[in-house]
Amino acid sequence: MSSEPPPDAFSAAGLAADLSAATISKKQLKKDARKAEKAEKAAQRQQQQPQADAEDPFAANYGDVPIEEIQSKIISGRVWTGVGDLDEAAAARSVLIRGAAQAIRPVSKKMAFVVLRESMSTVQCVLVASADAGVSTQMVRFATSLSKESIVDVEGVVSLPKEPLKATTQQVEIQVRKIYCINRAIPTLPINLEDASRSEAEFEKAEQAGEKLVRVGQDTRLNYRAIDLRTPSNQAVFRIQCQVENKFREFLLSKNFVGIHSPKLIAGSSEGGAAVFKLQYNGQPACLAQSPQLYKQMAICGGFERVFEVGPVFRAENSNTHRHLCEFVGLDAEMEIKEHYFEVCDIIDGLFVAIFKHLNENCKKELETINRQYPFEPLKYLEKTLKLTYEEGIQMLKEAGTEIEPMGDLNTEAEKKLGRLVKEKYGTEFFILYRYPLGVRPFYTMPCYDNPAYSNSFDVFIRGEEIISGAQRIHTPELLTKRATECGIDASTIASYIESFSYGAPPHGGFGVGLERVVMLFCALNNIRKTSLFPRDPQRLVP
Amino acid sequence: MSSEPPPDAFSAAGLAADLSAATISKKQLKKDARKAEKAEKAAQRQQQQPQADAEDPFAANYGDVPIEEIQSKIISGRVWTGVGDLDEAAAARSVLIRGAAQAIRPVSKKMAFVVLRESMSTVQCVLVASADAGVSTQMVRFATSLSKESIVDVEGVVSLPKEPLKATTQQVEIQVRKIYCINRAIPTLPINLEDASRSEAEFEKAEQAGEKLVRVGQDTRLNYRAIDLRTPSNQAVFRIQCQVENKFREFLLSKNFVGIHSPKLIAGSSEGGAAVFKLQYNGQPACLAQSPQLYKQMAICGGFERVFEVGPVFRAENSNTHRHLCEFVGLDAEMEIKEHYFEVCDIIDGLFVAIFKHLNENCKKELETINRQYPFEPLKYLEKTLKLTYEEGIQMLKEAGTEIEPMGDLNTEAEKKLGRLVKEKYGTEFFILYRYPLGVRPFYTMPCYDNPAYSNSFDVFIRGEEIISGAQRIHTPELLTKRATECGIDASTIASYIESFSYGAPPHGGFGVGLERVVMLFCALNNIRKTSLFPRDPQRLVP
Repeated sequence: MSSEPPPDAFSAAGLAADLSAATISKKQLKKDARKAEKAEKAAQRQQQQPQADAEDPFAANYGDVPIEEIQSKIISGRVWTGVGDLDEAAAARSVLIRGAAQAIRPVSKKMAFVVLRESMSTVQCVLVASADAGVSTQMVRFATSLSKESIVDVEGVVSLPKEPLKATTQQVEIQVRKIYCINRAIPTLPINLEDASRSEAEFEKAEQAGEKLVRVGQDTRLNYRAIDLRTPSNQAVFRIQCQVENKFREFLLSKNFVGIHSPKLIAGSSEGGAAVFKLQYNGQPACLAQSPQLYKQMAICGGFERVFEVGPVFRAENSNTHRHLCEFVGLDAEMEIKEHYFEVCDIIDGLFVAIFKHLNENCKKELETINRQYPFEPLKYLEKTLKLTYEEGIQMLKEAGTEIEPMGDLNTEAEKKLGRLVKEKYGTEFFILYRYPLGVRPFYTMPCYDNPAYSNSFDVFIRGEEIISGAQRIHTPELLTKRATECGIDASTIASYIESFSYGAPPHGGFGVGLERVVMLFCALNNIRKTSLFPRDPQRLVP
Repeated sequence: MSSEPPPDAFSAAGLAADLSAATISKKQLKKDARKAEKAEKAAQRQQQQPQADAEDPFAANYGDVPIEEIQSKIISGRVWTGVGDLDEAAAARSVLIRGAAQAIRPVSKKMAFVVLRESMSTVQCVLVASADAGVSTQMVRFATSLSKESIVDVEGVVSLPKEPLKATTQQVEIQVRKIYCINRAIPTLPINLEDASRSEAEFEKAEQAGEKLVRVGQDTRLNYRAIDLRTPSNQAVFRIQCQVENKFREFLLSKNFVGIHSPKLIAGSSEGGAAVFKLQYNGQPACLAQSPQLYKQMAICGGFERVFEVGPVFRAENSNTHRHLCEFVGLDAEMEIKEHYFEVCDIIDGLFVAIFKHLNENCKKELETINRQYPFEPLKYLEKTLKLTYEEGIQMLKEAGTEIEPMGDLNTEAEKKLGRLVKEKYGTEFFILYRYPLGVRPFYTMPCYDNPAYSNSFDVFIRGEEIISGAQRIHTPELLTKRATECGIDASTIASYIESFSYGAPPHGGFGVGLERVVMLFCALNNIRKTSLFPRDPQRLVP
């Protein structure tokens, strides 16, 4: 019966699994290269001689689909099944799937495997020449001539393999009846997905075995991001990023925040400082917003009580570090406060605990996927977020042998160390440090009532790295003008902002978070470029 | 009893309502001006002589709160009630509220009204001098000395007025026991909120009565946006905008789309054309993205199958119209298609019908609020969105006497007219026009399989104005290079984009919508500046 897999499929499955194993010898690499060359030639032949297989009685069951056929010519009513939806319950069912040919494994003239991938799922498709199945040796040849990553449609019957497949693939196979190539990839890709998907452990294991595996460097990945993004861990990272944003929005909406969009093109410099991108706006000097700070405050003055914004933030800083970008996604919030900026801290507490829980509960597959390539310990956090004063923080550092200038800021190293000390003492990697010296905060930060050398401000840390800055803001034009001037900012350049506070302005506070940093630190990734879809750093503007 | 309103409160309520009525005579305006002057002087006196009322036994029940007290000095545990939450069920309860003093109405030395507003809700607070209530004549004087829009805390008892209050206010009053000013507004605001909140009908009625009301022009509104945003209709507009975005996200997430963020800083010009903001990026020439088009397509090539993005879009066009902005919020989506770009149209159909329903069902209060100032008919739409070919469209126009160049585009006037014709014939103000001439679409648009003079593209219209553009995209590098060249674009400037399609690219399509346009046209507002929080047009870069 056509729903039964042919008997030789199973023994061959083991061979195919070996071929796909993560550790591939040098010999294998050369073999692969030769195979790729051959495949390229075969593909060329195929394209040059489309009628070559005309004598094949099953010629209609395979081939390259001409572009005319996929220019919205037909609505056939056929139903495609998602690769991720293929499970044991589908056994013996006839299905139609579309995916990228992640691996093509010729076994013999009469048999081949094609692994199709759709987003985070892969499935092994088995071709065995047989008149009953309508599969010819030419069809097998066609399948093995496909270049990796080509887009392929497969019609076939779902079957259960005798031996369980790799954890990352679906637990079923497809016995192919028809196979069509929708769009060919070039024969030799600049990045091999298997190379780009390996963990450090796999590299070490190979090295111990005297094998040399190809490493794909960060820059190469980014140069060919459209391929690099297909690795399971990248698919997972950006799905998690989407979930962080969703939960951020969902939580704040449930607390009566309104989502806003403030302009990114602004006159003057958004908050002073040199790290600003300048441009001409219809003949006027303009710049790109370094944050939505002034605008979200104006929205509060405009009566919205509580607002949030998700949008790009631009920093023309020449910071070549693992955690700085010239453009990133800001998650910003601003709210009226009745008495105390701890009201803002309480929102952050509830918000981030909700985000962490949501990820741990609803993104298990994504987290496991990242863990396979980049192993990490789950983030330790408390149900009620720990708050320490800045003074307590530097005292802890002092006791551990690190002296900090009491009115200065923490450097990256000190932050890391404090993160370790807090984790040891309080069992959390997520905490709030508040009451920073006024001198290290922006001009619009409200000074402390009891000591103007300190401010009603805070930073929030994950795994020893700052991800959130926040504060109570100054809500009177007099104090705002005074503080701007003290900070060397010409108040006339931000006149419309300062004026907003003379029309009736409520006390308020807020915070800003970098979306890429949240994902990077939650997953303990080592570089923010891993959590930015198309990162922008001082050196990189493409793709 | 303190829970009972004093007997004279009710008769005075009528008087106060008259004072607040929308039609105010010239005489009244002069009176208002004199009153404002007096209030200013009183406020100055108050600030200069803070101990003047020291002999008042109830002096502790009112006053200006010094800024030190609201610099996060205390966490009192007091509970504030939202003005919008005050209803009949709260009668006789003691409450604490904070709001902006929208109106201050002295009745006598012993009595005054203060209307407090919190976002979209207002409540009338009644002060009557009485030793029982702890209210002195000095306290009444303090209340009447407040400048409009000052931020005020009121403690008092909820009471039910005998006569129903205006539809826009809460149906209860507050019998004031304590009143404190948190932050004073300047005595004379550049915009009067009552002026900014009037409907055209109110202006007409006043004109017929020979009264002249102050109109606040669009530019003045935008110059003082932090005040203008407080009008009920603006509060409603931006809450609706937030809901449009939410529903957009929610619907697409439920259809397995992933939310992404693409860079706004890019090399070259994003899609060709002159309307691009240029800048220097660390010594390299760069520009601001005119759309996320190329990046969302690269994300599809990157294996995400279905993506959407909400983010700013920049157009350096010198278009001074009611519907163009230099920066707006783009709602973009891109998806793999199996056979036909109607798969994209189906998503749009489901998505927008869901958005319209959501607004009509869940934003009733906001829609009514906008309707009071800017009356409009609810949008007519069909459960299954109407699709017409471009040829059918120009045929309808031809039959109605408007000749259109068959291979050209529709101008604004023709679009408007077609909108009217479609509404008459099909009873809908929301429809899709598809199969546009190829020559009027961007280079990446897929030509029709049967006639390369046409394209697999569409526009979507609301009330005769285009809000969405979409199409199947070209998914092979050969055709893409050819079409770019034909359109006069140097393919080398978009090399990394074109290359993405050589690494295995699935057939796909997508669309882009302007968030501000959706809100403008759903609510039939006459100017896109009304639906942008801080609009950017060729003349406006501040605030």
